Amino acid sequence: MRVFNITIAGFGGVGRATAKLLLSRRERYRKVYGADVRLVAVCGSRSGLSDPGGLEAERLDTPAAGLSAPDFVAASGADILIEAGPSDFRTGRPGLAYIRSALAAALPTIDLVDYSLKGCELLEIEGILNATTNFLLDAMTTKGLGFDAALQEAQKGGFAEADPRNDTEGWDTACKLLILANFGLGADLTMDELAVEGLQSVTGDRIEAWRAEGVVPKLVGSLTCIDGKFRAAVGIRTYPLSDPLANVRGKDKAIRITTDAMGDTIAIGSGKEPLATAAAALKDLEYILSARVAVPVSISEPSS
Amino acid sequence: MRVFNITIAGFGGVGRATAKLLLSRRERYRKVYGADVRLVAVCGSRSGLSDPGGLEAERLDTPAAGLSAPDFVAASGADILIEAGPSDFRTGRPGLAYIRSALAAALPTIDLVDYSLKGCELLEIEGILNATTNFLLDAMTTKGLGFDAALQEAQKGGFAEADPRNDTEGWDTACKLLILANFGLGADLTMDELAVEGLQSVTGDRIEAWRAEGVVPKLVGSLTCIDGKFRAAVGIRTYPLSDPLANVRGKDKAIRITTDAMGDTIAIGSGKEPLATAAAALKDLEYILSARVAVPVSISEPSS
Repeated sequence: MRVFNITIAGFGGVGRATAKLLLSRRERYRKVYGADVRLVAVCGSRSGLSDPGGLEAERLDTPAAGLSAPDFVAASGADILIEAGPSDFRTGRPGLAYIRSALAAALPTIDLVDYSLKGCELLEIEGILNATTNFLLDAMTTKGLGFDAALQEAQKGGFAEADPRNDTEGWDTACKLLILANFGLGADLTMDELAVEGLQSVTGDRIEAWRAEGVVPKLVGSLTCIDGKFRAAVGIRTYPLSDPLANVRGKDKAIRITTDAMGDTIAIGSGKEPLATAAAALKDLEYILSARVAVPVSISEPSS
Repeated sequence: MRVFNITIAGFGGVGRATAKLLLSRRERYRKVYGADVRLVAVCGSRSGLSDPGGLEAERLDTPAAGLSAPDFVAASGADILIEAGPSDFRTGRPGLAYIRSALAAALPTIDLVDYSLKGCELLEIEGILNATTNFLLDAMTTKGLGFDAALQEAQKGGFAEADPRNDTEGWDTACKLLILANFGLGADLTMDELAVEGLQSVTGDRIEAWRAEGVVPKLVGSLTCIDGKFRAAVGIRTYPLSDPLANVRGKDKAIRITTDAMGDTIAIGSGKEPLATAAAALKDLEYILSARVAVPVSISEPSS
């Protein structure tokens, strides 16, 4: 049986969930792929664990201080590196791989374009790609909360950062949209080409006016393709209640993809984090196992 | 460049749309797969066309009488047979392949389970899998039409059969659900194990009561998996207006898949027929081209 040695870099909520889910699926990997999948190392920013024979779940709760940093990862002998560290859109670190996996979390996006809509010509994409802003807008609309009160509620729930601007100013949505455009659809867009609007302009008065009109506001990344040329933007769009996108509530995400031959295809995802992101990362692992070739899934430098 | 000879059996709306879409994508197949895809034969129940060098779109409008039947298909020299004939659930002809392609029409189902949710454990599936019954229920609910009036409207629009019982009694939904269960999820269910209810019990009074309650009725195929054991049924379920499934209107279809790690994933499709079904069939063709191996996509006897 072929052995696959896995290292997980980044050992916060997502990294831990990924490690545990991976170990719980070892029997599946054996049966389905004939693959002996071993977790040989995990490392966070200050601690880690390593064992060439494979770590077991009960050891994950006691990482050793000092076992960290890129050299540790390189020395682990991994065939496959799963990058689960934090990402910073401003510096670009730890890079694309993590962000792609975050994008996939419980919401098929590139999957849909690559697989379910294969062969179709893309006309438009609209996506509710950021859970935090969707939660905030939903709370402001349905509970009548102001932005600050909604944000406090999200921060208390642990799904808004202390500095929430990556989310609320639209940059997380923009980043995901760019990845979808450039890696899913072969566009060649840069952040400079996107008009990015966040929640800054959403006042109580506007919410009231939308309610009176019977429409629901969403922070949407949109992409159109006209004569092979892509245009992308992030901003508020409103939808009537009969539109499935209007009913994407709380921390759920959604995407609508319009193609020439298949009309509109909508996907809505509502996985609980960090488990859903862990499952998305391990979905990529299964594609690699099914190709029966060990290649690194991460092209980024591990976060340190 | 490798040549792939294609024969399309069944030359009604879907067969014609598939032939035209295939020919319009020949350049794509060359560029993306290095494949010279030729349509060498098409045949309906009473007429057909064949040309070992490949048919062009303009010839499709004038099929010759007599060129039909299984022997004709066998003699066409095709590497790949696309089955697009009518299906009859009672006799099982022309068989599974056509039904699988019909199931895929503009709605990712097996795709989602196989690809986007790979590795997750399935807990439940609910699907609005039949366009005709969704149209009928939607017209009865939103326009206040009776069943007969709604059916007449659907028949006038060409998307309900003269004998609509395959759809209205739930058999089409049941058949699609079985395929999804058995071929997508490895279940081993037979039609006898399904409780199948159609629209027969939906009276104006029940519609009125649902409206008063603020819920929307849908004909749903449902599948649960408890301790590895599958249970399937077809019947009316009702959803509150805030549920995305309540907002699947007209001839649209949808599926909600609940898994252990990714929560609920919903897909909604609204492709226009017969183009969407043609595109779904050609999606399967692209998987074959990308594997660079010519295998028959149909395991059924062609319809005659």
